[in-house]
Amino acid sequence: MTHPLLEKHRATLDGALNAIHTRCYWAAYNEMPSPKSYGETAAEDGKQAFAARLGKNLELDQPGQSGWLGGEQSPYGIDLNVHYPVCDHAALIAAGQQAMTGWQKAGADGRTGICLEILSRLNQQSFELAHAVMMTTGQGWMMAFQAGAPHAQERGLEAVAYAYREMKFVPGEAIWEKPQGKNPPLVMKKHFELVGHGVGVVVGCGTFPTWNTYPGLFAALATGNAVIVKPHGNAILPAAITVKTIRAVLAENGIDPNLVTLCVAAERATTQALVTHPAVKSVDFTGGNVFGQWLIDHCRQARVYAELAGVNNIVIDSTDAYQAMLRNLAFTLSLYSGQMCTTSQAIFVPAGGIETDDGHKSYDTVCADLAGAISGFLAKPEVAHAVLGAVQSADTLQRIQLADSGELGKVVLASTQLANPEFPKAEVRTPVLLACDAADEQAYMEERFGPISFIVKVADTAAAIALSERIVATHGALTTGIYSTKPEVIDAMTAATQRSKVALSINLSGGVFVNQSTAYSDYHGTGGNPAANASYADAAFVANRFVVVQRRYHV
Amino acid sequence: MTHPLLEKHRATLDGALNAIHTRCYWAAYNEMPSPKSYGETAAEDGKQAFAARLGKNLELDQPGQSGWLGGEQSPYGIDLNVHYPVCDHAALIAAGQQAMTGWQKAGADGRTGICLEILSRLNQQSFELAHAVMMTTGQGWMMAFQAGAPHAQERGLEAVAYAYREMKFVPGEAIWEKPQGKNPPLVMKKHFELVGHGVGVVVGCGTFPTWNTYPGLFAALATGNAVIVKPHGNAILPAAITVKTIRAVLAENGIDPNLVTLCVAAERATTQALVTHPAVKSVDFTGGNVFGQWLIDHCRQARVYAELAGVNNIVIDSTDAYQAMLRNLAFTLSLYSGQMCTTSQAIFVPAGGIETDDGHKSYDTVCADLAGAISGFLAKPEVAHAVLGAVQSADTLQRIQLADSGELGKVVLASTQLANPEFPKAEVRTPVLLACDAADEQAYMEERFGPISFIVKVADTAAAIALSERIVATHGALTTGIYSTKPEVIDAMTAATQRSKVALSINLSGGVFVNQSTAYSDYHGTGGNPAANASYADAAFVANRFVVVQRRYHV
Repeated sequence: MTHPLLEKHRATLDGALNAIHTRCYWAAYNEMPSPKSYGETAAEDGKQAFAARLGKNLELDQPGQSGWLGGEQSPYGIDLNVHYPVCDHAALIAAGQQAMTGWQKAGADGRTGICLEILSRLNQQSFELAHAVMMTTGQGWMMAFQAGAPHAQERGLEAVAYAYREMKFVPGEAIWEKPQGKNPPLVMKKHFELVGHGVGVVVGCGTFPTWNTYPGLFAALATGNAVIVKPHGNAILPAAITVKTIRAVLAENGIDPNLVTLCVAAERATTQALVTHPAVKSVDFTGGNVFGQWLIDHCRQARVYAELAGVNNIVIDSTDAYQAMLRNLAFTLSLYSGQMCTTSQAIFVPAGGIETDDGHKSYDTVCADLAGAISGFLAKPEVAHAVLGAVQSADTLQRIQLADSGELGKVVLASTQLANPEFPKAEVRTPVLLACDAADEQAYMEERFGPISFIVKVADTAAAIALSERIVATHGALTTGIYSTKPEVIDAMTAATQRSKVALSINLSGGVFVNQSTAYSDYHGTGGNPAANASYADAAFVANRFVVVQRRYHV
Repeated sequence: MTHPLLEKHRATLDGALNAIHTRCYWAAYNEMPSPKSYGETAAEDGKQAFAARLGKNLELDQPGQSGWLGGEQSPYGIDLNVHYPVCDHAALIAAGQQAMTGWQKAGADGRTGICLEILSRLNQQSFELAHAVMMTTGQGWMMAFQAGAPHAQERGLEAVAYAYREMKFVPGEAIWEKPQGKNPPLVMKKHFELVGHGVGVVVGCGTFPTWNTYPGLFAALATGNAVIVKPHGNAILPAAITVKTIRAVLAENGIDPNLVTLCVAAERATTQALVTHPAVKSVDFTGGNVFGQWLIDHCRQARVYAELAGVNNIVIDSTDAYQAMLRNLAFTLSLYSGQMCTTSQAIFVPAGGIETDDGHKSYDTVCADLAGAISGFLAKPEVAHAVLGAVQSADTLQRIQLADSGELGKVVLASTQLANPEFPKAEVRTPVLLACDAADEQAYMEERFGPISFIVKVADTAAAIALSERIVATHGALTTGIYSTKPEVIDAMTAATQRSKVALSINLSGGVFVNQSTAYSDYHGTGGNPAANASYADAAFVANRFVVVQRRYHV
């Protein structure tokens, strides 16, 4: 007596369940925008679907609507002019609570089946979503397609798989028979009902409006909760399209669509009232430390899953693939103009330089060579635009300007402004690379979000590892890296990262980059350092989103 | 390459893993103090081992010791006069942190094996622990044996089983091979290390110093954390014996015994400094709302698993086993003088009375009959003393006095003081039963810990169910019950308890009582209402106590 949609998507679910257990490579959705996977007309259809949204009201038919709100500014400079329903947050909460009863009755199988169907439908919209992500965030096209659509969907599916595993471990019922010696046994029948904790709010960010939203959204949804998506004010469209599709699939399957709603808010006070409402029991957040800490401090009625700022870093001790290392780093620092929570900000290089397959390289040479590798990589405009995309926010532009001024360190590579022929108004910037001493902590030891990195001169490798550990423990990080040809150095860095609880990439010199984390295999964040109190995804990410309510009686 | 202690206890672990999944009856340890299970001399040996501790310093050989502290007052009035090492809390934390590295290296199998060995050794000490629990808490002997020893051990084992399941789901390593079309695949080797979040503190309570301590203790320990046990100031001995045994087993197995320490503190400020220390990453607490809320508000660096106060309640609509129901309730209200977090405090009876197999019973008759059932049950002194035990605290005595004064409601059954011939100084009290109206919320709608219950007159069954739901949602509860012969009434109560997230016992009339929760089968608390933000035990109770730190490299 399982759910037809669970049967329809059984192979996908089984694949995901196997993948989260083996953590080997697996994917449910094609990351290449291939006509064979998505259909011959998918690319054009998706582009037109996106274009058709522009300049219009995006109808969601939600309760408590009082008006329309828009105002997204595309980093590519195109006019979006989409408006979204403004709804009373209390009305959305009340409607979500009401919808939860039917969702609870659908059971683990029904909820999982419907979530899988939603993901499949979102996958069919990948081109439309990719355009929406690209145009609201400034990501390059390929990245917007991959990270914005299939990769985000994989992260959502991953959360559904974890939720399914935990929910299915709890039996629906049990006969409890306790022997009583020579007397008849005590026999009870017990029922165990999975009940969502309450309304979940997912607060999105401006750079990854789907990739960072889907894990919390699907974790909360699959475990029986209503979800209110509160998107970043400049990246509403991808969230709104997502919510619209979810609501359609819910309604098709007899579930009250108000289970999932979009909450756009012109004022922060509205968001604050939303997330602190007594009925809100979980808040998923990606963003800066100020609001993140505010959430942790004020949303005491809820469990807060927060990904905040950090100072990602790399230790370079030595390498037997100098050019490949430089190419790998150049890509990492350039991708989406460094506007990723996983981009490396501090690169530690010993004052005495490093040994490489190309001979000894002084600290200054490493600085110059990395600068050269970045310039070389971005020399062709078509490559540069595809990789860099556009700068998402004015704050990031200001940070680039500050770094370029030389105030934070010696400018090894200045940021340049590029003109994008396709999008003349796009704000495109190449990375700025600074050199500084380990003592200049105020420069490199806070997150400077954007294409701003420091090559920090450290006494030696041991000092670099110690500094990395201290930074992660006190300021947090999602990623660290090490380049070394010496096993004992790699062991020391491994031990340091296990103490400071951060993921480590070792000697990346090929087609994998420190800023990339792959669903089912790489944990995004450990939940153990200040950069994030949760991980995408693990058992802890789902287990606390529902409770088990039992009843028992004699039989 | 597993751990020898895991192999030694494999059958126990497998039994527990099966039990938490099926939630059928299962037990690893005999709840009867049987010589066959525990040895012919176990009872006498345990008694003597307990007696030998009295009037002495209990040596633990912990770091940072500055003196000795005692002062436990036995509710049975015997002299305990045991003293425990007073150690600087910062020294205990530092030593615990240091010990965590070796514990991490033991891996999931090693930690689980050693935890199982510890539980087995504690089981062998069941008689000694039972005496320690009895004499510090005032529990009757059989309850002290069962709840204090085997049942507490089962709850510890349950937590270990959940921890093992979550830890073993994470593979130690994986080969990640991503196809690249016609090019060679990307291949990486990844390692996944389980790392405890940090030092865990378990704050014990005065009434169940092992049963409420072992879940958090073993959950934190098995998942790789150091644990500092902070016992209630009047129930140190059972915790100290436990810690001593744990330290011995750790040392025998090459683990730094400072992984687990006892922290006794004369002043609350010391406890506050301990639990708010930055290195403390989890706090398990059982006790009152005031300190519990303080912990939740102040221990922002830690995850707090708190069991607080609540107002457990029962709705009586009708019954086809009136006498059996009364007997069942009489036992529940009498057991350990109601000093259980699961004892029912409010019993809702319709103003118009109830239908029973013995005809209609008016509200007043139900009050009188329940009073009579309690008096009758406790008529024999040997039964009364075995069931009631002694009153644990002066606060509870005061609450009984207040209830007896009639200020809180009409006294239907007054509490009486009984003389215990074996323990002349024991404070023994029978339950007090009060009658009041639903409107007298200030009387019955806060926890009045101890043998104090209210028969609350409600308009009708529907009002009773609504009142029960409101109480659970606003004040919390660990247990609710209903008596009804009507399926629609049971369905309504079931729905109400699923909304308010509390366990429900239906028509208990035999040898199972609403205040009992059995390891592996009954969830103790749901974590979804104000009485507790966690449950013994489930995935959520363990999953957030460790993180996974990965490293990856090309192969």
